[in-house]
Amino acid sequence: MAKTSKSAIKETLKVRRLGIDTYRENVAYLHRECELYRAEGFQALSKVKICADGRRILAVLNVVDDDNIVTPTDLGLSEEAFAKLGVSEGHLVSVEHAEPPASMDAVRRKIAGERLSQEDFYHIISDITDMRYSKTEISAFLVASGQTDMDRDEVFFLTRAMLESGEQLDWNESLVADKHCIGGIPGNRTSMLVVPIVAAHGMLIPKTSSRAITSPAGTSDTMEVLANVELNIKKLHDIVRKHRACLAWGGTAELSPADDIMIAVERPLGIDSIGQMVASILSKKLSAGSTHLLIDIPVGPTAKVRQMRQAQRLRKLFEFVADQLAIHLEVVITDGRQPVGSGIGPVLECRDVMQVLQNSPDAPDDLRQKSLRLAGRVLEFDPDVRGGKGYAIARDILDSGRALEMMDTIIKAQGVQTKTFELGKLTHDVLSPSTGVVVNIDNLQMAHIARFAGAPIDKGAGVDLFKKLGDKVKKGEPLYRIHAEFPSDFSFALTLCERDSGYLIGKEEQIPKAFVEF
Amino acid sequence: MAKTSKSAIKETLKVRRLGIDTYRENVAYLHRECELYRAEGFQALSKVKICADGRRILAVLNVVDDDNIVTPTDLGLSEEAFAKLGVSEGHLVSVEHAEPPASMDAVRRKIAGERLSQEDFYHIISDITDMRYSKTEISAFLVASGQTDMDRDEVFFLTRAMLESGEQLDWNESLVADKHCIGGIPGNRTSMLVVPIVAAHGMLIPKTSSRAITSPAGTSDTMEVLANVELNIKKLHDIVRKHRACLAWGGTAELSPADDIMIAVERPLGIDSIGQMVASILSKKLSAGSTHLLIDIPVGPTAKVRQMRQAQRLRKLFEFVADQLAIHLEVVITDGRQPVGSGIGPVLECRDVMQVLQNSPDAPDDLRQKSLRLAGRVLEFDPDVRGGKGYAIARDILDSGRALEMMDTIIKAQGVQTKTFELGKLTHDVLSPSTGVVVNIDNLQMAHIARFAGAPIDKGAGVDLFKKLGDKVKKGEPLYRIHAEFPSDFSFALTLCERDSGYLIGKEEQIPKAFVEF
Repeated sequence: MAKTSKSAIKETLKVRRLGIDTYRENVAYLHRECELYRAEGFQALSKVKICADGRRILAVLNVVDDDNIVTPTDLGLSEEAFAKLGVSEGHLVSVEHAEPPASMDAVRRKIAGERLSQEDFYHIISDITDMRYSKTEISAFLVASGQTDMDRDEVFFLTRAMLESGEQLDWNESLVADKHCIGGIPGNRTSMLVVPIVAAHGMLIPKTSSRAITSPAGTSDTMEVLANVELNIKKLHDIVRKHRACLAWGGTAELSPADDIMIAVERPLGIDSIGQMVASILSKKLSAGSTHLLIDIPVGPTAKVRQMRQAQRLRKLFEFVADQLAIHLEVVITDGRQPVGSGIGPVLECRDVMQVLQNSPDAPDDLRQKSLRLAGRVLEFDPDVRGGKGYAIARDILDSGRALEMMDTIIKAQGVQTKTFELGKLTHDVLSPSTGVVVNIDNLQMAHIARFAGAPIDKGAGVDLFKKLGDKVKKGEPLYRIHAEFPSDFSFALTLCERDSGYLIGKEEQIPKAFVEF
Repeated sequence: MAKTSKSAIKETLKVRRLGIDTYRENVAYLHRECELYRAEGFQALSKVKICADGRRILAVLNVVDDDNIVTPTDLGLSEEAFAKLGVSEGHLVSVEHAEPPASMDAVRRKIAGERLSQEDFYHIISDITDMRYSKTEISAFLVASGQTDMDRDEVFFLTRAMLESGEQLDWNESLVADKHCIGGIPGNRTSMLVVPIVAAHGMLIPKTSSRAITSPAGTSDTMEVLANVELNIKKLHDIVRKHRACLAWGGTAELSPADDIMIAVERPLGIDSIGQMVASILSKKLSAGSTHLLIDIPVGPTAKVRQMRQAQRLRKLFEFVADQLAIHLEVVITDGRQPVGSGIGPVLECRDVMQVLQNSPDAPDDLRQKSLRLAGRVLEFDPDVRGGKGYAIARDILDSGRALEMMDTIIKAQGVQTKTFELGKLTHDVLSPSTGVVVNIDNLQMAHIARFAGAPIDKGAGVDLFKKLGDKVKKGEPLYRIHAEFPSDFSFALTLCERDSGYLIGKEEQIPKAFVEF
């Protein structure tokens, strides 16, 4: 048999960092005339293993014909791959054929309709966390484990695997509260109201949230208008210990890292199975150390959940998995027929939130009411709060100004934002095509328009709604205003709203009914 | 409402062709500091639309920080994207948000378990052909339409959509024969024997075949050792008209182009559903103008089809779809327990084929027998050949030297290969670890070793088998020889066969039984 010496792979190509951001996929660039490796031999198999000093990453291979990009003695790495390998430029590396990740066998069994075990999910999630899956493989897993193909035990297995794939915070308290909305409703910035209200009551609520991926703003994007949101773990702990709350970006904490990788594939595909959703949310919340969690499921014709029976199915699944994982979870089903508040986009949403905190007469009442009800339900996690009394406590805290005070405290603790963000100066008013009543506002289209206008990258970009469901409008009266910073984004948004403004004007009786709690 | 002038997107970035081969996916490279577009705004949505002079392509977006790759006023395109857009360097282009392909709605319905219509499949295949799908979207479609999720009518719909997506050859004859193996068996180069035998009988057999994607050799890779295989449509027609046959690469003819795009995703994923397989093979064969088709399904423990009942299921599906499409199709189920012949890799396989054609005493008997039986069955498509008499006719043609003569004719017509390919000079003999009988040869592992050794890119690389199933071996006796050209490939192959040689030595009675025709 061959001796090991014969087959040892030497590390002999020089690493070069290419300034190419391949967005959550490792890509390696090998010259077609590379003296050591036959680039084309690797290509169809799609991935290579790159080793340096015992470190190893997998990467998709692109073959390069241009010496200005990489020379035949170099191996180029995309930004993400370079960071992941973690050696300096010029370091010697070897390239090998990458075996497909072993857990792809389980994915193939799932495709064939089999039920997977806890072990299978551990292996899949561990391979995804270690970036051993290409985006096509992640896509295969997401589709195979989509809504028709995962039973509730499997959702629990997946959640546990995701939870255990990263860091887990421990606050050493018996009641760590959190709230989370499943998403899909623009302007729905209730967290920035619920957190100060609940914290003012004295309850621990260390809120970590996401940045927008395909939506016009995440809570972190909006909070960042006011304060620094990128806190390291130590700072996060210090703030929460001292003030009982924070409103920080969760990305620095490596909580459920597989989730971030999968979401980067799932969102552009527009697939969102309920099993994946439950696993994603619960793994993130549990890893953030929550013991009590309120889940907001908005229902409406353009919400993620369109029918009450789907909402109930989702609720049962949340409850089942939460019980297995011993987290206290409650679900509220809310009115998701239209955006919440007036603004869509970080600066505009921030304005709405601050108006509510300041008890301004201009404050959007729907955002205020929804936040008070959610805060009330979270407050009722407190054993000393009688069922049904949370709302009144929340309202007292808000009306008295104690919520605003707590928000100021949080902002100062996290660090006041040094930049000032202005509303986008390029504006366009979309006018009503007829006289009547607003009978529909399409959540997806409004989010889409705000996104095209530049939100959340330009914090001042977005959409400001002047009319909501049931409002009377005259022909030619403005329905909403688009704000943009960048001319190309402004054109994209205008083109999109020319095609479909997202508003429907009709008669009172056409307004869809809400069959929900609030 | 906004005026069109306000929202028109101007074509103002200069196209730059980047020498990066992104392997069947369009990639565009935009500078992070681009003056016209906010690169990051596009990124999470994953795809952009690029327009120039009314031409448009979709591409995945990578954000670049290095002015040496693209400047802020340029838009870089990967080789494939540049070719697809078809404008010259420096041409002005615009960038827009790409809507997800409309047919992704159908894919999402498929994920949710719905049955798709002929219309749905037309739309999906048309979008895939036009490169509107990213690889993750193709992966989603492949998994969603995998084996548990497509009924036989849907397989027919898919086949028809794929067939109609590209060119279709018409030979204006009532009997155009072809044979096709579903693959997975190394060394199985029967086409290079069946074609000259059948053509010598006078039957029309215009054989177009593929190059290897993840296997160590396709028929085209092996035929290329002897002759030019890249023929344009006109030349192909002329040769077939004159000599009744060809052995050419099918890639130049744009037959079922969606198939090539899907296979590039499917193979590395290692998913191979029977519905996709049937649609892929039948769309290719029908578009090549075949009227009579023999399908070879090898069955064995390491073949694509492992059990007789799976083979029968696959056979029924082939028959059903072929009947709908009015092609005369027959299926033979063959012994797929081990590689066919001795050589794996283009030069070695070519040697085996020529030995059979030359009636050499060294010729591998299994390759000869299998080819004669397949040729016999194809000959029986001729109404003048009595059932059961094909084999004897095929044997006469081979033994008389007429098949060899026909092969020479085909080689000369296509153009004799001007390069000489030698066997790889780096060699290593893998020795038997014990005395006994060869009881298993793993098809996948042998293919894998030959591929790592450099096949098919280095035509002389591969594996030469000295022992086959049932052969007696002594401890230390060579089982096979690895040939490689390139030192890195040689090490890859050795490392792989150290881990698992692919051979199992045991006792006579451990040899798996073959329950197949031949």
